[in-house]
Amino acid sequence: MTELTATSRYQCFGGSVEFYQHPSDCCGTSMAFGIYLPPQAQQRPVPVLYFLSGLTCTPENFLTKAGAQQFAARQGIALVIPDTSPRQTGIPAEDQDYDLGSGAGFYVNATEEPWRQHYQMYDYVTVELPNLVGANFPIDLSRAGICGHSMGGHGALVCGLRGNYRSISAFAPIANPSASPWGQKAFGQYLGNQGWAQYDATMLVAERQVDFPILIDQGATDQFLVNQLMPEKFVAACDRAGQSLNFRMQEGYDHSYYFIASFIGDHLRYHAELLM
Amino acid sequence: MTELTATSRYQCFGGSVEFYQHPSDCCGTSMAFGIYLPPQAQQRPVPVLYFLSGLTCTPENFLTKAGAQQFAARQGIALVIPDTSPRQTGIPAEDQDYDLGSGAGFYVNATEEPWRQHYQMYDYVTVELPNLVGANFPIDLSRAGICGHSMGGHGALVCGLRGNYRSISAFAPIANPSASPWGQKAFGQYLGNQGWAQYDATMLVAERQVDFPILIDQGATDQFLVNQLMPEKFVAACDRAGQSLNFRMQEGYDHSYYFIASFIGDHLRYHAELLM
Repeated sequence: MTELTATSRYQCFGGSVEFYQHPSDCCGTSMAFGIYLPPQAQQRPVPVLYFLSGLTCTPENFLTKAGAQQFAARQGIALVIPDTSPRQTGIPAEDQDYDLGSGAGFYVNATEEPWRQHYQMYDYVTVELPNLVGANFPIDLSRAGICGHSMGGHGALVCGLRGNYRSISAFAPIANPSASPWGQKAFGQYLGNQGWAQYDATMLVAERQVDFPILIDQGATDQFLVNQLMPEKFVAACDRAGQSLNFRMQEGYDHSYYFIASFIGDHLRYHAELLM
Repeated sequence: MTELTATSRYQCFGGSVEFYQHPSDCCGTSMAFGIYLPPQAQQRPVPVLYFLSGLTCTPENFLTKAGAQQFAARQGIALVIPDTSPRQTGIPAEDQDYDLGSGAGFYVNATEEPWRQHYQMYDYVTVELPNLVGANFPIDLSRAGICGHSMGGHGALVCGLRGNYRSISAFAPIANPSASPWGQKAFGQYLGNQGWAQYDATMLVAERQVDFPILIDQGATDQFLVNQLMPEKFVAACDRAGQSLNFRMQEGYDHSYYFIASFIGDHLRYHAELLM
């Protein structure tokens, strides 16, 4: 059994925020994650919501800034927040750019050197981490939802469409990474010139749909909206594919955690309805 | 009129989180504060809750981590968060210790060199800043409450007992600073060997009471409880003075913002009842 090392624990809304490190088989290095266990987890296994964070984030950002724990406590849902990449792998360029390497794993399985030995984030997030938390915490893995922000919104849509999740939502996702400068840089480095479609929600939804509505919130004054996020491409692709989508353009909101905090309660209620 | 320089603005729960800098007369240097204006402030002047932060904090910590904005939006209360000290004053030792100088103003008017020229935080928080926000934002200064955490809990109790506030609450306050190592170090430097009683809530409440109950939450596993905070001294002093106090010892909680976030909703409801 994989050894978990607890790095810190804080009581919060009657449950607990906990941070861990563990050796990861698929990433070949130590990985970090955060978890919120609601009070109900002391009595019985609870459903789980994975939250995938955006560029530069650690597992702390979401648990510190989003204000999700109160809603998770009310609904009885565990929150699991993976780190956004392996770190300190020894890859020479890993800390050079904020949008590549450390903090920028993009939730793909890298096929290219020098990344492929460690940057297996798709498998980590969809297989290794769920198995790990299922084995160590009172979590019912059969009731899992996924959510994310920006790069993590991209990850949530892709993991959600390809995997076994009962609910999918996103804040300001990079919705068509193959057409976005962030996505093109990362996919080019991690994947070379092939395999992009399986990691691009706008391309993927033509072939894979889910039988529940996806929820997306997007700030209308988000500085990355036009050049990096392009949610309108995903909206159109869902329309063509017959995928039910609740896309909400939120006037006056930007890309920050103040935006996420304003609507995370709606997202937790959405996930609770599908997970309970 | 004092010039405010806006440094950033974020829409949040239908209102806005805004950060400012301005020249301060009483501190003789530039000061920073944060404000949350709830949606109701677009229609009419709203009551205000000042939140005084703890050691090392800037105005950002509370607005980023406490999750108070949703409750302020619901209740229609503005939040005003001063910085915890002047900064970059040129005083040689200002950045040497985390518990003295920058980030550690202790909400007193310093009488001693080298601090007294800039460290006039009591006047800043109780007079200059209220006048400034009253002149620049739709805030009804006659309906003001005060809250704080740790060093800021001390500040909230002291300002609240001495000033004109309609409601007072605190999280883990340094309740008897004259008997606490943090308080003794700061008071010794800022005040020399006199005038401590007017800045010590436990001593002050013997002479000044308010005609409403004070609310205090304290984590039972707070690492600073026994040696630095000593709320039991304030509880006993309130008892002797006939001051109504709702002191809640919260099992399992520590000194962190995860603790504050867990109970900030209760505090906003308490303040709203007294401010509306």
